Amino acid sequence: MIIAVDAVGGDHYPHNPVEGAIRSLGESSSLEIVLVGPEELITEELSKHEYDEDRIRILHAPEIIGMRESPASAVKTKTNSSITIGLSAYKKGEVDAFVSAGNTGALLAASIFLLGKLEGVIRPTIAATYPTLKGISLLVDAGANLELKPQMYHQFAVMSSIFATEVMGISAPTIGLLNVGEEPEKGMDLHKEVYRLLQEEFETFTGNIEGGDILLGKTDIYLCDGFSGNVLLKFGESIPEILRNLLPKTMKKEGLDEESQKLVYRVITETMKPFNYEHVGGIPFLGVNGMSLVGHGSSSPVAISNMIHNAVNCIENEINRKIVASLNP
Amino acid sequence: MIIAVDAVGGDHYPHNPVEGAIRSLGESSSLEIVLVGPEELITEELSKHEYDEDRIRILHAPEIIGMRESPASAVKTKTNSSITIGLSAYKKGEVDAFVSAGNTGALLAASIFLLGKLEGVIRPTIAATYPTLKGISLLVDAGANLELKPQMYHQFAVMSSIFATEVMGISAPTIGLLNVGEEPEKGMDLHKEVYRLLQEEFETFTGNIEGGDILLGKTDIYLCDGFSGNVLLKFGESIPEILRNLLPKTMKKEGLDEESQKLVYRVITETMKPFNYEHVGGIPFLGVNGMSLVGHGSSSPVAISNMIHNAVNCIENEINRKIVASLNP
Repeated sequence: MIIAVDAVGGDHYPHNPVEGAIRSLGESSSLEIVLVGPEELITEELSKHEYDEDRIRILHAPEIIGMRESPASAVKTKTNSSITIGLSAYKKGEVDAFVSAGNTGALLAASIFLLGKLEGVIRPTIAATYPTLKGISLLVDAGANLELKPQMYHQFAVMSSIFATEVMGISAPTIGLLNVGEEPEKGMDLHKEVYRLLQEEFETFTGNIEGGDILLGKTDIYLCDGFSGNVLLKFGESIPEILRNLLPKTMKKEGLDEESQKLVYRVITETMKPFNYEHVGGIPFLGVNGMSLVGHGSSSPVAISNMIHNAVNCIENEINRKIVASLNP
Repeated sequence: MIIAVDAVGGDHYPHNPVEGAIRSLGESSSLEIVLVGPEELITEELSKHEYDEDRIRILHAPEIIGMRESPASAVKTKTNSSITIGLSAYKKGEVDAFVSAGNTGALLAASIFLLGKLEGVIRPTIAATYPTLKGISLLVDAGANLELKPQMYHQFAVMSSIFATEVMGISAPTIGLLNVGEEPEKGMDLHKEVYRLLQEEFETFTGNIEGGDILLGKTDIYLCDGFSGNVLLKFGESIPEILRNLLPKTMKKEGLDEESQKLVYRVITETMKPFNYEHVGGIPFLGVNGMSLVGHGSSSPVAISNMIHNAVNCIENEINRKIVASLNP
C-alpha cells in the first residue's frame, strides 16, 4: 500500500505532514509513503528524523497552494503544485491514495477535475468529523455544495453511511436531518421532501435534528446543506478558543491563586480534548472517482498519521466500489 | 405606561412572569402591569408576593398555548389564550405593549394576524440576542423566515440597526452578513447580491462573517436566513449544558477532591454567565405594526423584568415610527 502525502499542506508544513508520515509507518509494516512537495524542503525536514529510507520517497512538486488562495485559480495556474502532482500520481496508478491537510477548496476542485466522479454520483461531498458528547459524528455536507437537491441528500446519506460503517466502525450509523424543529412538517418544502425520501429509503433515519442536538451527538450522521454545514463547522471550532479567552478573565476576577488557575486550566484542557481538531484524522471526498483525503489545516502529526490510516481503511474496505454498487442497484 | 405581561408564557409560569412583573415595578415608578392569563392561577401566584395593588391588574384569559403546540393551529383554535387576549388588548389601545416568554411561533403568527405589518415591511422578523465575547450581538433572522429575498436582508438590517441603537444603546451598530467565507464573492448568488446591496446602503456594513466569528462578537448585528439563525441559536444555547455534562467526567478522571471540584464549577459557572439565556430580556417582533415582544422560554424573573423595560424603551424611543420613516423615505 503506497500513500502519497502532501508535504506542504496545512498550517504546519513541512513539519507535521513529514512527522505524521513517519509516525504512520510505525503502525503498519506494509505501508509505504510518497511525500509530495518541494524536494529540497522535504529532504531537509526528513534529515531531522530517523526512519526507514526504503519506505519513504519524495515526489518533487515545486509549487505550493496556500491555505487562503482562491481554489479555482490556484488549481488552474499552479499546475506543479503538490496537490496536482500528488493527484496525478494517483491517476497514473503510482500511489493508492493522496492525503492532504491543505486548502480544502483547491483539493476538492482538483480531485473532481483530475479524477472525476463515481458512476451515478450527482456531486461529490465533503464530510467533516464533528466532536460530540458521544464521540464523533459526521457532518455532511460540510461546505462543498451550498445548496442541495433532495436526491443529493439521499446520495450523501448513502456515501457517509458507508464511510461510517466501513472506516469508523459504526454498525448501522443513524442519520439525522438538520432542521428547525423535530416534526416532519418543519422547514422549507425542500426539507419536508427530503424527510419523506430519507424515511422511505433508510431504516437508520431517525428524523430531524435541531441545532441543540449537534453537540449532544444525537445521530452518527448529520445531513445538511453545505452553507449550514460550513457555518456549524467553523462555529464548533471556535468554542475552545472562546473558553481559553474567557477563563483568565474570570479567574482574575475571582482572585484565584496560581495553583488553582493551573488546576482549572488542566480540567478545561482535558474536557475540551475531544473538541480539539488537531487530533482528528481526515476524510475522503465522497463521490470522487479515486481516493483523495482531506484533513483539517491544523492537523497534528497524529492527525496526519490517522488520515493515512483512514486512507488505507477506505481502500481495504473498498468504499468506492460499495458506493457505486449502492447508488447503481 | 401600561405593559401587558403573558402570565402563562414560558417554561416557568406563572412564577417567573409574575415575579418579573412585580420586579419591573420597582425599577420604574410610572409603570403599570396587566397580567394576562387564567384569573385564579394569577391571583394565587400574586398572593405569594407583596406588591402595589394599584399598579398590577389581571386580564382574564382562560386558555394557555403550550410551548410545543403548532403555532398556526393554536392561534386559530385557542381564541381565548393569553396571547390572543393580550394582543387584542393592545390593539384596542388598553395597553402599550404585550410581552411574553411563550411559544415564539404562536406569538409571531398572532402578532402578524392581529396587528398586521408596518408600512413598507415585506416580512416581520425575529431578532435574537446572542451572547459573545464582546457582549450581546443581534442574530437576525432567528427563525421567522427560513428563506430570505435580498430586500428582506436590507429591511432586517434597517430594523435591527434601529433597535440596537435606540434600545441597546449601541451607536452605529456594525452589520455582518453570515457567509461561508470573508470574500465578497463567497456564498450563493443570493449572498453575493446581498453583499453588494448592504455595501451600497450601509456605512456600518463590515462584510461577511463566518461561523467562527459569531462567539467572538465580530459585529453587533449578524444577518442570516432564518434557517441558519434558528440552528445557530439552538446550538449556542446547548453549549453550557455540554460543559456541565463533560466537566464531572473529567474531574472524576483527574481525581479532583471536593473542594477543587467546587472551585472549577464556580469558575465555569461564572465564565458561562454571559451565555446564560435565562437572564437576557426579550425583543420585539420587528416589522409588526404594534409592540409585541418575545423572550426566551426559560426567561428568569430578571429576564421578564428586562423584557418589560425593553418594551418601555421601544415605545419611548418610537422605534416603529423610525422604522417606517427609514423604510419609506
